Amino acid sequence: METILHLTGPLDPRSGWRASPDRCPIARALDVMSTRSAFLIMREAFYGTSRFDDFVGRAEISEPVAAARLRELVSEGLLVREPYREPGQRTRHRYRLTEKGADLLPVLVGLIQWSQRWLDDDGAGGVLALRHRDCGERVGVGLRCAADHEVAVGELDLTLAAAGAR
Amino acid sequence: METILHLTGPLDPRSGWRASPDRCPIARALDVMSTRSAFLIMREAFYGTSRFDDFVGRAEISEPVAAARLRELVSEGLLVREPYREPGQRTRHRYRLTEKGADLLPVLVGLIQWSQRWLDDDGAGGVLALRHRDCGERVGVGLRCAADHEVAVGELDLTLAAAGAR
Repeated sequence: METILHLTGPLDPRSGWRASPDRCPIARALDVMSTRSAFLIMREAFYGTSRFDDFVGRAEISEPVAAARLRELVSEGLLVREPYREPGQRTRHRYRLTEKGADLLPVLVGLIQWSQRWLDDDGAGGVLALRHRDCGERVGVGLRCAADHEVAVGELDLTLAAAGAR
Repeated sequence: METILHLTGPLDPRSGWRASPDRCPIARALDVMSTRSAFLIMREAFYGTSRFDDFVGRAEISEPVAAARLRELVSEGLLVREPYREPGQRTRHRYRLTEKGADLLPVLVGLIQWSQRWLDDDGAGGVLALRHRDCGERVGVGLRCAADHEVAVGELDLTLAAAGAR
């Protein structure tokens, strides 16, 4: 049986421990990004969408869903809601990515990359492309270690940090 | 208003086009990875979990949910279901990541990285760590272009490829 991640130390064998919901970082991230609509709203925020009506129209979700998701994403600190006023208009609110929200971009780019690699019917890599402004080359995400080595999927160890009370 | 991604060409301004569900690669990826339980099952597959009962217990989901998700993930080609038989036992089935499924790892690592950076209460970076087997350093995901430049979030252009009928 092939294992992609190699579990080391107390994590091996897998049957000896549980990735409990309050400790597993993936589960905790999914508590925040819990729905398809949360991802679509974050996509729109990256594209520069800021007004409620535009989130509804561009993410193609209902107003109640958009309102609920925006409230959650603000409450979790991924977006901020701030008042603004155009000359001669009443005060309205707009939404802007925080640093915490913007830091989710590698996850979204990872989804784009995977989708274009595996779900495209025409094999053309999709029509949307992320490019590096400086050099114009396509941008993707990859695994890399702190020593700046590119890391293949099969070269990963999952370890348990010794330090800390948990 | 800050925009993280810079839209270029026909994509600018954002109000002139729609990221339609059947074209947006994020939306299409989320059609496949549509639920929290799908992510948790993929997490377990990366950890080497292969048997139905172990997916249920380790992802802490119900049997009907696990059965539905595994069926979908097999049908979408992220997992394969194959028979195996231990000596003296009846034939059973196990699940294994395909190349398409394994290629989702950067997305999961992106979620781990974001979660440990932004959701950890103790600031210790969490107890689970992904390490590069060769050098022992922590592994994360980052944006990088085909010319191998590290790309900051603000250096991204979103462009529309000219080629193709779509």
